[in-house]
Amino acid sequence: MDVLLKTIEALGIIAFAVTGIFEARKKKMDIVGVYVVAMITALGGGSLRDIILNRHPFFWVEYYQYPILLLFLSIFSVGVMKKSLQKPRLVLLVLTLDAVGLGLFSASGASLAYQSGCHAFIASIIGVVTGVFGGVMRDISCNEIPHVFQRTELYATCSFVGAWVYLIVFTGSMNEVFAVLSCVFVTFILRMLAIRYKITLPI
Amino acid sequence: MDVLLKTIEALGIIAFAVTGIFEARKKKMDIVGVYVVAMITALGGGSLRDIILNRHPFFWVEYYQYPILLLFLSIFSVGVMKKSLQKPRLVLLVLTLDAVGLGLFSASGASLAYQSGCHAFIASIIGVVTGVFGGVMRDISCNEIPHVFQRTELYATCSFVGAWVYLIVFTGSMNEVFAVLSCVFVTFILRMLAIRYKITLPI
Amino acid sequence: MDVLLKTIEALGIIAFAVTGIFEARKKKMDIVGVYVVAMITALGGGSLRDIILNRHPFFWVEYYQYPILLLFLSIFSVGVMKKSLQKPRLVLLVLTLDAVGLGLFSASGASLAYQSGCHAFIASIIGVVTGVFGGVMRDISCNEIPHVFQRTELYATCSFVGAWVYLIVFTGSMNEVFAVLSCVFVTFILRMLAIRYKITLPI
Repeated sequence: MDVLLKTIEALGIIAFAVTGIFEARKKKMDIVGVYVVAMITALGGGSLRDIILNRHPFFWVEYYQYPILLLFLSIFSVGVMKKSLQKPRLVLLVLTLDAVGLGLFSASGASLAYQSGCHAFIASIIGVVTGVFGGVMRDISCNEIPHVFQRTELYATCSFVGAWVYLIVFTGSMNEVFAVLSCVFVTFILRMLAIRYKITLPI
Repeated sequence: MDVLLKTIEALGIIAFAVTGIFEARKKKMDIVGVYVVAMITALGGGSLRDIILNRHPFFWVEYYQYPILLLFLSIFSVGVMKKSLQKPRLVLLVLTLDAVGLGLFSASGASLAYQSGCHAFIASIIGVVTGVFGGVMRDISCNEIPHVFQRTELYATCSFVGAWVYLIVFTGSMNEVFAVLSCVFVTFILRMLAIRYKITLPI
Repeated sequence: MDVLLKTIEALGIIAFAVTGIFEARKKKMDIVGVYVVAMITALGGGSLRDIILNRHPFFWVEYYQYPILLLFLSIFSVGVMKKSLQKPRLVLLVLTLDAVGLGLFSASGASLAYQSGCHAFIASIIGVVTGVFGGVMRDISCNEIPHVFQRTELYATCSFVGAWVYLIVFTGSMNEVFAVLSCVFVTFILRMLAIRYKITLPI
């Protein structure tokens, strides 16, 4: 099952990276800019989680394959995918993967925080931070008001709900994998519904 | 007396959070955006202090009541205070509390840095960082040039002077509470005078 | 030889600080804003390196002379250098020093990362981060899209190549000083050529 979790994590990192590459290309950045924004978006949330929880080395320092993967992805996307990135089906694929990544990172943040002794509420906050911080840094790097701060479809909210699902399922079942999958599942469904029906917060 | 310091700290956090909520509402953010900006503004400076001084867990991870308090404050402010936030008397109250918070966080940064063995000048710098960084992050999040960088009424300067007052009084008296109160007092008076008489730096 | 490295480091910090002061003055900041931007630009990259590698105290907390030096530099530049900063020869001097600083910080990041056990690719990334992050923070503070993300003359690329030169020379010769000087030399020449011939990345 650990292989399953690692696979989901890698998918989430790739999805986050692709959203970064999208934005960077829109701003006409060159390959270096694209790579940097991809790195920030995909690895930013997990890095902040590691800073807050004093985890060393950082996950991408330990798994050096991730930065290398993102380098190839950036080169590939700039060289080959140029036009296909606009295709609606690909946009949908990216949004879908992004929702999976959001769920996975929310679970990972909440899980590591809770198991290192944090209060449940703090664990849920760290889950949200891990899930959304990469996107915030992406938007700040591209000089825009971060999307999650604006009246967009639910995003941080999905992450928050997902983190609580993780915490409740984990406390109830003591089954890490089951709790993570529940979190990813709920976050994913909620996010997809929010996109499909353009659900926004009333206040 | 420790109760007194904790009360001032809580007041400072609330005041900082309210300035964040103000800005976030101006930008038409929803409740999640408001909460995030409130958190960044109120907890950003202390978090950076904890990173620089390698203090773990972070103060808001240890005192989980702060993030919960900020959540209620955000919901309350969005739901109820909508219009009253514009009232000049409330603006004055916020500026006043903000000045208290600035003094308290400057003292806290300078105090923790100095007592962990930093050089006095570094301690004063960390005091300023702790006092002003939250506001800087608030402004960057809202896509504006941070106010403290501009020709505004003295702000970082008050924090800097306050931090030195702490250091001098503490070295002289070895009385932590007295030194903190002196710092808060001087920072507060200086800031109020700067606002009242629109004092800016000549260069 | 250690004196030589310390001298280069100090020169690099000064050069980075001067670029920060330039930008801050363009935005009409007062002395406090100028000092803050100078600090962020000159010390930002090294601080992030220290966070990633869990090095404490931070280099500028240990060598408190740097922040004091930057304070005098800021006051001096605001008071005296006002007009001379525009002179083309000074701009060239700053670009030259900046290239030296870029090389030095890239080498320092790659060196510390590699010797603390990071994979070579991660070490090169940390070298780039150390070299360019200060400039990124400078641009974000001044509310601009960071220069390194845009189609500018090679910058992060020089840092990346320089970091690899360090890694290869160090692995080959096991001579720290020689490896650092090689990195600074290559980064410097490459950056100067890129400016002179306006070399940009093709993609």
